[in-house]
Amino acid sequence: MTELHPVEWLGDRVRWINTLKIPWEEEWVEARDYERVAVAIERMEIRGAPAIGVAAAFGVALAALYSGARDVEGLKADVRKAIERLGRTRPTAVNLFWALRRMGRVLEGNYGDTEELRRAIIKEAVRIFEEDVEVNKAIGRVGNEVIEDGDTILTHCNAGALATAGYGTALGVIRAAWESGKKIKVIATETRPVLQGARLTVWELVRDGVPVTLITDNMVGYVMSKGLVNKVFVGADRVLRTGHVINKIGTYTIAVLANRHGVPFYSAAPTSTIDLETPVEEVVIEERNPDEVRRVLGKLLITVPDVPVLNPAFDITPPELVEGIITEKGIARKPYEENIPKLLGKG
Amino acid sequence: MTELHPVEWLGDRVRWINTLKIPWEEEWVEARDYERVAVAIERMEIRGAPAIGVAAAFGVALAALYSGARDVEGLKADVRKAIERLGRTRPTAVNLFWALRRMGRVLEGNYGDTEELRRAIIKEAVRIFEEDVEVNKAIGRVGNEVIEDGDTILTHCNAGALATAGYGTALGVIRAAWESGKKIKVIATETRPVLQGARLTVWELVRDGVPVTLITDNMVGYVMSKGLVNKVFVGADRVLRTGHVINKIGTYTIAVLANRHGVPFYSAAPTSTIDLETPVEEVVIEERNPDEVRRVLGKLLITVPDVPVLNPAFDITPPELVEGIITEKGIARKPYEENIPKLLGKG
Repeated sequence: MTELHPVEWLGDRVRWINTLKIPWEEEWVEARDYERVAVAIERMEIRGAPAIGVAAAFGVALAALYSGARDVEGLKADVRKAIERLGRTRPTAVNLFWALRRMGRVLEGNYGDTEELRRAIIKEAVRIFEEDVEVNKAIGRVGNEVIEDGDTILTHCNAGALATAGYGTALGVIRAAWESGKKIKVIATETRPVLQGARLTVWELVRDGVPVTLITDNMVGYVMSKGLVNKVFVGADRVLRTGHVINKIGTYTIAVLANRHGVPFYSAAPTSTIDLETPVEEVVIEERNPDEVRRVLGKLLITVPDVPVLNPAFDITPPELVEGIITEKGIARKPYEENIPKLLGKG
Repeated sequence: MTELHPVEWLGDRVRWINTLKIPWEEEWVEARDYERVAVAIERMEIRGAPAIGVAAAFGVALAALYSGARDVEGLKADVRKAIERLGRTRPTAVNLFWALRRMGRVLEGNYGDTEELRRAIIKEAVRIFEEDVEVNKAIGRVGNEVIEDGDTILTHCNAGALATAGYGTALGVIRAAWESGKKIKVIATETRPVLQGARLTVWELVRDGVPVTLITDNMVGYVMSKGLVNKVFVGADRVLRTGHVINKIGTYTIAVLANRHGVPFYSAAPTSTIDLETPVEEVVIEERNPDEVRRVLGKLLITVPDVPVLNPAFDITPPELVEGIITEKGIARKPYEENIPKLLGKG
């Protein structure tokens, strides 16, 4: 099975898989127009913070490649226009702005001609892609150290190849264990309301041949009480200096159950996810569209049309429930306030 | 708002609400033919153990009313045929067999003519109905004692009027508190895979004007950690002598979260639900159709078609997590092994 890259540079065009159609269809889209990439990010054909960042960088590369500018200044202006457009696609995506800033810095250099600048821009975009895959593989190697042959690993949401440039974070650890020959199994929670577990994680693992069993989110207590889970691996949207893990809604519920049953709970995330500044009291949990809860995948209405709902995107798992933070630079363990800065070389 | 009775005797016919169509439509079905009642139970138009028992008793009453038999023995034979047919509708429904046995015992009496027997049969069916409503109202009164003005109560699945002859068990407690003037609010979990919370509990509470907020099952940890829940009330499919509560999948997950956050967890159920004989090790958890997890409500496929799934119908909440068992005879508290038999007058 070839490695899955949800967004790729094909030399003269960008290719991505439309994650909205997974698992029903495997639709690959190709574009030479950066506007089409911007629309794909807006429509969430491309989702997951690192994948969005990579797609935006490739969008900038397309703008450079197909600009009709005759001189370096004209090309820089066209590229800046693309950066500005791509930056308006998802207002809260940290990786998006980080990737676009990196692309913008390429423009600060001196270039003899447009070809030289084009090559520099494309090279930087490809480097962002490659670095993300490398970081994920490093996370996989680090995480694999704590996995034993025969483990059953519970995972939530999709912290997989489909959310990144490839390989994934929590699923990267699972892939690394599987590739190293350990006979592991996975239990995937469906992850209401948007069902990333049922749709994406199951699809990825079936594609790779890793044994996976799907459960509803409320079966976590049941599988733990039956002794069916040895470890939990989830991703992270943000990790604080204190070791608080901010991740997809439902993560905290799983962490509490894991704690009760003595099952180690790990979060796998690149060090770029670590936020040393923000105190936990200042973390704002985004409330999403209530119809995500009232309907399933925008289609099937499952309740009284206007009933009030809660729809927090994330929850916060406190450090005492977290056995370790798996990063490309190693595992941070308690006390996090001491060990997380140390891992980053800022201790 | 009139009281909701999902199954009712209208003097010469049975009327029920087709719960499969809730919340999309309010379809009331009327029948004079017991075969139609049997089919309604098989198709799960009527669901919930007490509601099924009542419906079956009314089915027997229809058989008696519309039998063409000229003498008592002929009428008894027709009624026995109906009991046999209704007994084949749901093989594991304890209340179904209990209600049909009660109806069968009516046949053991001596009757001067067919009219006398007909009247006795109809009277017994109506009594089964009335007793269920009375028991639920008594559960409501008992449970209301532990509810405080301003409480927010989290409930799971549907332990409401729609599962019984009327009023409900866990929702009976909520109704009693609301009717007594306490300003309470309810948080209802959607209850995957069959979504009884989103479909039925929300519908019932909106109908009665009780403020209700819907959440996905994996938001329980979030709402508890935010201090949004004061009490948990769920129903029970079975309560053991030891205080183990066997209830809809997801109940145990909620109980563990409640325990961590110091939120009292109650189960409300009639004493007929208490099983003094079976030890917890012998409780068998039924595995239901995997497509309930792979699809939503038999309609929308949400994952890879043949992925393995778990689909246990129930889970088991251990007594240390249960603050009390609310019954029509009072509240049983720890130690359950002592206090449950005492409550039943078997201590």
